[in-house]
Amino acid sequence: MPKLAYLGPEGTFAEEALRILAPHAERLPSANVSAALDAARRGEADGAVVPLENSLEGGITTTLDELAWGDPLLITAEVLLPVEFSLLVRPGTESGDIKRIFSHPAALTQCRGFIARELPDAVAVAGPSTAGAAQEVALPSSPYDAAIAARIAGEHYGLVELASGIGDRSDTVTRFVHVTRPAPPPEPTGADRTSLVVFLSDDHPGALLEMLTEFAVRGVNLTRIESRPTGDGIGRYFFHFDFEGHVAEARVGEAISGLHRVCADVRFLGSYPRADRLSPQIKRGTADPDFAEAAGWLARIRNGQI
Amino acid sequence: MPKLAYLGPEGTFAEEALRILAPHAERLPSANVSAALDAARRGEADGAVVPLENSLEGGITTTLDELAWGDPLLITAEVLLPVEFSLLVRPGTESGDIKRIFSHPAALTQCRGFIARELPDAVAVAGPSTAGAAQEVALPSSPYDAAIAARIAGEHYGLVELASGIGDRSDTVTRFVHVTRPAPPPEPTGADRTSLVVFLSDDHPGALLEMLTEFAVRGVNLTRIESRPTGDGIGRYFFHFDFEGHVAEARVGEAISGLHRVCADVRFLGSYPRADRLSPQIKRGTADPDFAEAAGWLARIRNGQI
Amino acid sequence: MPKLAYLGPEGTFAEEALRILAPHAERLPSANVSAALDAARRGEADGAVVPLENSLEGGITTTLDELAWGDPLLITAEVLLPVEFSLLVRPGTESGDIKRIFSHPAALTQCRGFIARELPDAVAVAGPSTAGAAQEVALPSSPYDAAIAARIAGEHYGLVELASGIGDRSDTVTRFVHVTRPAPPPEPTGADRTSLVVFLSDDHPGALLEMLTEFAVRGVNLTRIESRPTGDGIGRYFFHFDFEGHVAEARVGEAISGLHRVCADVRFLGSYPRADRLSPQIKRGTADPDFAEAAGWLARIRNGQI
Amino acid sequence: MPKLAYLGPEGTFAEEALRILAPHAERLPSANVSAALDAARRGEADGAVVPLENSLEGGITTTLDELAWGDPLLITAEVLLPVEFSLLVRPGTESGDIKRIFSHPAALTQCRGFIARELPDAVAVAGPSTAGAAQEVALPSSPYDAAIAARIAGEHYGLVELASGIGDRSDTVTRFVHVTRPAPPPEPTGADRTSLVVFLSDDHPGALLEMLTEFAVRGVNLTRIESRPTGDGIGRYFFHFDFEGHVAEARVGEAISGLHRVCADVRFLGSYPRADRLSPQIKRGTADPDFAEAAGWLARIRNGQI
Repeated sequence: MPKLAYLGPEGTFAEEALRILAPHAERLPSANVSAALDAARRGEADGAVVPLENSLEGGITTTLDELAWGDPLLITAEVLLPVEFSLLVRPGTESGDIKRIFSHPAALTQCRGFIARELPDAVAVAGPSTAGAAQEVALPSSPYDAAIAARIAGEHYGLVELASGIGDRSDTVTRFVHVTRPAPPPEPTGADRTSLVVFLSDDHPGALLEMLTEFAVRGVNLTRIESRPTGDGIGRYFFHFDFEGHVAEARVGEAISGLHRVCADVRFLGSYPRADRLSPQIKRGTADPDFAEAAGWLARIRNGQI
Repeated sequence: MPKLAYLGPEGTFAEEALRILAPHAERLPSANVSAALDAARRGEADGAVVPLENSLEGGITTTLDELAWGDPLLITAEVLLPVEFSLLVRPGTESGDIKRIFSHPAALTQCRGFIARELPDAVAVAGPSTAGAAQEVALPSSPYDAAIAARIAGEHYGLVELASGIGDRSDTVTRFVHVTRPAPPPEPTGADRTSLVVFLSDDHPGALLEMLTEFAVRGVNLTRIESRPTGDGIGRYFFHFDFEGHVAEARVGEAISGLHRVCADVRFLGSYPRADRLSPQIKRGTADPDFAEAAGWLARIRNGQI
Repeated sequence: MPKLAYLGPEGTFAEEALRILAPHAERLPSANVSAALDAARRGEADGAVVPLENSLEGGITTTLDELAWGDPLLITAEVLLPVEFSLLVRPGTESGDIKRIFSHPAALTQCRGFIARELPDAVAVAGPSTAGAAQEVALPSSPYDAAIAARIAGEHYGLVELASGIGDRSDTVTRFVHVTRPAPPPEPTGADRTSLVVFLSDDHPGALLEMLTEFAVRGVNLTRIESRPTGDGIGRYFFHFDFEGHVAEARVGEAISGLHRVCADVRFLGSYPRADRLSPQIKRGTADPDFAEAAGWLARIRNGQI
Repeated sequence: MPKLAYLGPEGTFAEEALRILAPHAERLPSANVSAALDAARRGEADGAVVPLENSLEGGITTTLDELAWGDPLLITAEVLLPVEFSLLVRPGTESGDIKRIFSHPAALTQCRGFIARELPDAVAVAGPSTAGAAQEVALPSSPYDAAIAARIAGEHYGLVELASGIGDRSDTVTRFVHVTRPAPPPEPTGADRTSLVVFLSDDHPGALLEMLTEFAVRGVNLTRIESRPTGDGIGRYFFHFDFEGHVAEARVGEAISGLHRVCADVRFLGSYPRADRLSPQIKRGTADPDFAEAAGWLARIRNGQI
């Protein structure tokens, strides 16, 4: 039975994602995303389940930066989890008593409208996780009066749900990924996604245009692009890309080899089945048999059979 | 004397930026970025000074999203501010006493290494601003033992500086911008920057490539690209662009008109002098006189003078 | 009644084209394409009708080079003419008597198969026009035994048609254009074509790619590209382009202004109704109202109305 | 001793080119370019030397079309030959006697200025080769009074040179190529050229842009592009490309494989040393070791070594 680390404590959305991705895995709660990934890196767990992006907030920067800069890990699966927030309090607390709300910054942002409308005088304080906020609020001595977290966290820590569905949008989704230590990627399924980190070789104008052309010329469709600063001063970025297809496919292999040749560095993060099971529309001339046929043709003309 | 709102309380890096951008302005501290921008929108202040991006953390998402979705504001100036963090405590607190550290999430991230090394057992709690963290820690009843903030904040609130320069990198820079209510942009200086928000008309593969080509064809160099989710599910983004040049210049006008024609929406955020005073290298055929000459030529051939 | 010069003598395909383009015009036969164009330039005629390209042979190089290098002329109309060749002899000549065939080089090329098959021992000699060949062959003292020309030419000069439809392909088409001295182009019809000559500013790799991008970015579709040497050594070219749309349209105006800015020289050859009356498919965001709307938007943001 | 066919008779520029390319070869004069190529195809000769393009006239259409449509041949070498024209007459003929001038159409075009200035009343008649024109004029019964050809042709056929260097430009150059039956191309020299014919898969707008992007993305620089009609009606073209590099090189192999995948047909015409011995400037990341390194990297990540 594999053991998987996740952003704990029990009751987080990450735990919910883990239960979907690996129902029978042993669960190892970690203090934060970095700790969960380190548990996987050091072999304390067989892998980790961490959030990669949120439909409202964008990329989860800790995860993006850990995957880009830390010891390599491989994404092997993804799941999309609808995120619903509840306002949770200790038994006996009423709405009018709430002076200090505790939650993860993304959750606070996503419930901004509710807070402004219903709890205009409360102070929102950011903590490391939604379930951790629930755990903290459950302490009788907590300086916080309410947590914003998943209902499951409230049940877990004995809190009362004063309101549910309090996010500004009802359709917020978070994408979680399952990562493992380096290994061959899972077999192609025909509906796969590949994730990369690309560092430009220099910041000449047009470098990003060149990168995108490497994809476009091989008919590889991007599904996500996320810029991140390299930390070397304002105006220097690296990029996270997600795109359709699997590294075992020829068009993907040629496109990322092209990036590898012209960029300062490319880090492969994994090829894995898409959660939505959508197959890509393959542009004419870019399917694997097209590449194989072209390779045969090239070999023949190099050999004089024209 | 103009009145400018900023992310308060007194002692924040935003205050420091404001003092550089407008030394003689009256200062109006606000509870957070949204409040500062709203003060400018409602006329309670003549403008606001807010952080736009950080060389380590990337775009400040609240500012990016406020400028993209809120009532329009115009960026009229920018400043780059080196950011140096100190560990601040109440008089009498010693290093070994620190159990809970309070600061802005970006500051906590930037001091991750210091915390792990020097205060491995402390819990880091995120709050709305670095100066606010100092203010909170200064309260005798505060549940926090230390704040991470600018030295100036410590002086302001009577805290002791236990350590300085504790950021993981010594060269962290934050870009602050001065925004006002809608108005004609400041005159071109020859070393200007323009900021835009672009919403793709649909998410067809290649839409981003098309956008970048609109810039490249007119010789307009990008200096920043930042993707942000639209909130409508995973995989839908809009983009913040910064690029060289001023909206009054022909190549910039034609490029952004091109974006306006082919994208769902383009929001102009302003043209303003670059903090680094760097003049762009203008590609052959794309200076204002080239456009004027070409317009004359087109008028002549339309009129039969070929 | 206008007077139009054409590649004479009477009986050429050019005369046929002229009769279609301008049924009531007075006709002025000229010795060759250059002479016909010069007659128009000098005012001896009001215009000229000359072949521009042939579906089998490609561009008519004399016409292409005259329009590119000679005094400017304006294309105002085009017609597509199916070209059918006949083998024409003096009365009394039989197939077995034919030793020397005379015709225009393009006609000889297009009847290559027939000559090789039916008259394998005959020598083919190239002359300046098909009708001129018929005229020459009609002379009793002619050193030639047969002409390849239009049937109408045989009738005109009293020759006998030994064979008809002798071209290697039955669907050969020649495009003729009507040119005049410089004048405003005819009004747009919604199904127009525009012709240009473009000289690259230098032969850097990618210059042609840049030119095509100027068209693509404004949604202007090319219908013909023809490279011609500049005469300055091997490897230096200029280009004839035909594309959909009219110079009065905004997307065409902006595209050719862009070429004018970045290329060494652009010569406008005319905007005129397409012979096939096909309307272009206008790419989203590139119709005239889109440009007008974008111009209004740009004016507003430059004026502070954001 | 190899036997090479060429555009005869003796005294043509083609013979001169052949003597440079293969000084010790046996020479087989042919009636025209097609006959020379057929001699090579049928094994009557070991190869052929034919003109491919002229700096003044552009591509030699017969050669271009023969190489594109006829049985495959391989270009193995090229030579650039300065072309100088002389006015040649039978002994006793004087300038004032010249009524009819005979030459190849390209030569007549290149001497247009001289003829108009010095022999304004003479008729120019086009024949199949310059040396053939000299041979014809040498006949006492010839209907022609003068030939325009190379001086060597005049010597060969006993003509008198009335004027030399009569071309409108002094720097006309013709490129001749040596072709053989299909075989492996000659070894790379580091300064090679490759020739291709490409048929677009359909005439969608942007197909040419796509083709050029296949080259650009792999850093392959074009040195010649020549459009030719397919014969299927107006507006349908195929393309001759020359570009830097050798088919044995990785960037060339990948670029032409890409064309092969997305175009209707690609015909390889050969990789051979450049006459000018210029080495290409190799774009960063596109040299053979870059491709080899990238292939190794791709193999490793596919195998799990990330």
